[in-house]
Amino acid sequence: MADYQFGNIENVKEGDKFVNRQALRDAGIHLAPVAGIDGNPRVGAPSIVLNGGYVDDLDLGDEIIYTGHGGNDPSSKKQIKDQSWDATGNKALIVSEMQGLPIRVTRGFKHKSKFSPKEGYVYGGLYYVTDHFEEKGKNGFVICRYKLEKVSPSETWQNLVKKELPLGNENSKRIATEVLRIVRDTKLSKEIKKLYNYECQICGTTISVRGARYAEAAHIKPLGKPHNGNDQPGNLICLCPNHHVMFDKGVFAIENDLSLVGIEGSLSLHKNHTIEKSNFDYHKEHIFINE
Amino acid sequence: MADYQFGNIENVKEGDKFVNRQALRDAGIHLAPVAGIDGNPRVGAPSIVLNGGYVDDLDLGDEIIYTGHGGNDPSSKKQIKDQSWDATGNKALIVSEMQGLPIRVTRGFKHKSKFSPKEGYVYGGLYYVTDHFEEKGKNGFVICRYKLEKVSPSETWQNLVKKELPLGNENSKRIATEVLRIVRDTKLSKEIKKLYNYECQICGTTISVRGARYAEAAHIKPLGKPHNGNDQPGNLICLCPNHHVMFDKGVFAIENDLSLVGIEGSLSLHKNHTIEKSNFDYHKEHIFINE
Repeated sequence: MADYQFGNIENVKEGDKFVNRQALRDAGIHLAPVAGIDGNPRVGAPSIVLNGGYVDDLDLGDEIIYTGHGGNDPSSKKQIKDQSWDATGNKALIVSEMQGLPIRVTRGFKHKSKFSPKEGYVYGGLYYVTDHFEEKGKNGFVICRYKLEKVSPSETWQNLVKKELPLGNENSKRIATEVLRIVRDTKLSKEIKKLYNYECQICGTTISVRGARYAEAAHIKPLGKPHNGNDQPGNLICLCPNHHVMFDKGVFAIENDLSLVGIEGSLSLHKNHTIEKSNFDYHKEHIFINE
Repeated sequence: MADYQFGNIENVKEGDKFVNRQALRDAGIHLAPVAGIDGNPRVGAPSIVLNGGYVDDLDLGDEIIYTGHGGNDPSSKKQIKDQSWDATGNKALIVSEMQGLPIRVTRGFKHKSKFSPKEGYVYGGLYYVTDHFEEKGKNGFVICRYKLEKVSPSETWQNLVKKELPLGNENSKRIATEVLRIVRDTKLSKEIKKLYNYECQICGTTISVRGARYAEAAHIKPLGKPHNGNDQPGNLICLCPNHHVMFDKGVFAIENDLSLVGIEGSLSLHKNHTIEKSNFDYHKEHIFINE
């Protein structure tokens, strides 16, 4: 099984050109020889190639509405039946969405957009899958669609915090949004979540779509100033979004015997997971607000 | 009662100078004549002034570790007892944190930092309260502390997505983090959440710290391309973080009779809240993934 690498590939920059799919493969950008979606439902999708295979693709540069795979007639390449969320690549893209994994985007010469090369392939940088939804495509069959948003150095924090979402046609108004909460993730966070199979260590909840699971990892002693907690398994727990907010905001704390204070319950611990107890003490003393 | 305005004040730019507190008040920046924290636990804290009142304040420019109020001797201004999370301004700051409200920060001439003016006051722009915690202060008493992070145009999305959090002293390593999820908010989102008193319309859950409540508002037909849902009460519901993730990712949908499909349960509806049923249909058809 291919050993997939997520994120940028060393020595490949955005805008780099490749003569054909084999060159993309040799560079480690996209391993699948033909398929537009690299990866599988176990690890997610590290890369996609847009090359005109699906008439419904919409490419706005920093934002792409991408069509999943399946339903095309092998010879005419026209869509002749519905796509399915169970198709390997479609499932892989949902895993990428639920787990916040970056996706490499490459555009080929057959892809119709102003960002496509005249010949060969051009690497377009990293995107996140931020949404998936179902539609009737131009050919009248169900298509699985994904919204990809660029991880872009040109977008400022200001834009992110006060983003104006465009609506419909250009004359309609825009909606100002603000960021209420940002959930961060680290490499080790992903590993801890996997260890617990994305089940909350407090309530057992997992959020699952077609087997793609979502959970959040909390640093017991928070990262960054002024707490300076570390990013180690001994400082990480796997929680559902509700318990994550509650823990971070100090609604409850965890005692050394794993019972909770502030709310009912206790923390389950995997036999291969050892927590540094002093982190519980730190959280209880500094973050927990005893009402 | 003062009519507090949150966010930037028209015609006041970052860096603008004010001769005294009265001038700040006249400009609408900070209404309280003496207190460092403007606002109250009902609405949150629209503004703070740093002016040397608390020895533990730490000002790194884009990040401020701010000390709550209370515990100081009125004459010597030295801290002589513990601060309390129940003090009006301290509670107001937690409300701002839980509800993601922006705070105006002004620095006075008595505040010790390289960002302070030599005389008078200087407006320092908008910040978010991103954390609160408890510590023993330099004077040996408990202090309520808040981390404020600047809403800054200089910080790029790239930085935000791959942020490196510094640890302890400068020789220790940095931790690369990625954004897993961003929860956005609009003006109307805040109103819908208030209408439901921050209780989830599905499970009744609310997340509360000292009376400051947290919930999330979901747009039934999503905002932005390609869905182009509107930001109106008829397209908004108040959910806990868990049900919000599940709804956005299509784990369940809502029928016109308010029963759920995909999971057990139903949606409660406030008598003053009318939902545009076609939004339920859109969500069910396009976002919900029937397993």
